[in-house]
Amino acid sequence: MSEQNRQRIVVDIYGHQYTIVGDENTSHIRTVASLVDSKMKEISESNRYLDANKLAVLTAVNIANDFLKLKDEYNKIKKDYEDLVEKLEKKEEKAYND
Amino acid sequence: MSEQNRQRIVVDIYGHQYTIVGDENTSHIRTVASLVDSKMKEISESNRYLDANKLAVLTAVNIANDFLKLKDEYNKIKKDYEDLVEKLEKKEEKAYND
Repeated sequence: MSEQNRQRIVVDIYGHQYTIVGDENTSHIRTVASLVDSKMKEISESNRYLDANKLAVLTAVNIANDFLKLKDEYNKIKKDYEDLVEKLEKKEEKAYND
Repeated sequence: MSEQNRQRIVVDIYGHQYTIVGDENTSHIRTVASLVDSKMKEISESNRYLDANKLAVLTAVNIANDFLKLKDEYNKIKKDYEDLVEKLEKKEEKAYND
C-alpha cells in the first residue's frame, strides 16, 4: 500500500490525544482506540492506586490475554473446519470411486 | 474458581516488574507478559522519542488492532464452519427422507 493510503487519525484514549498512523480505515482505527480507552477505564476503576504508566501496561497485558485466548479458539475452530472439509472430500472421492 | 486457584506471578515487562493476578496458569501468564514485552521493544525501536507512558498506550493499541483483526477472521471461519455443518445436516436429512 502506498504512503498516500496511510491514515493519520487523532484519537482520544483515557483523556489524552494520540496520532495513530496506519493502513486501516478510520472506522477500524477508532474502534481499536475505543477498545483501549474502555479497557483502561475498566482497569482503573478496580485499581485506583495505579499510576498512568502501569495502568497502560496492565491494559496491554489484559488485551494480550484476550488476544491469546482468542488465538487458541481460532486455531481450534480452524482445525475443526479443515478436518470437516477433508472428511467431506474423502467421502466424495469414495462415492465417486464406488 | 476459588480465590486459592488465583495465581500471583511476577513478570518482567520492558525492564519493570509487575505482579499479575489471574486464574490462568503460570505458563499462560508468562506468554502474555512476553508478548507485551516484545511489542513494547519493537515499537520503541521504531519510535525512540516516545515516553514510557505513550509507548505502553501505543503497545495496547497495537495489540488491540491484532485482536480485532483476529476477531474478524475468527467470526468468518466460525460462520464458514457453521454453514458447512448446516449444509451437511440438510444433505443427510435429505438422504434419509429420499
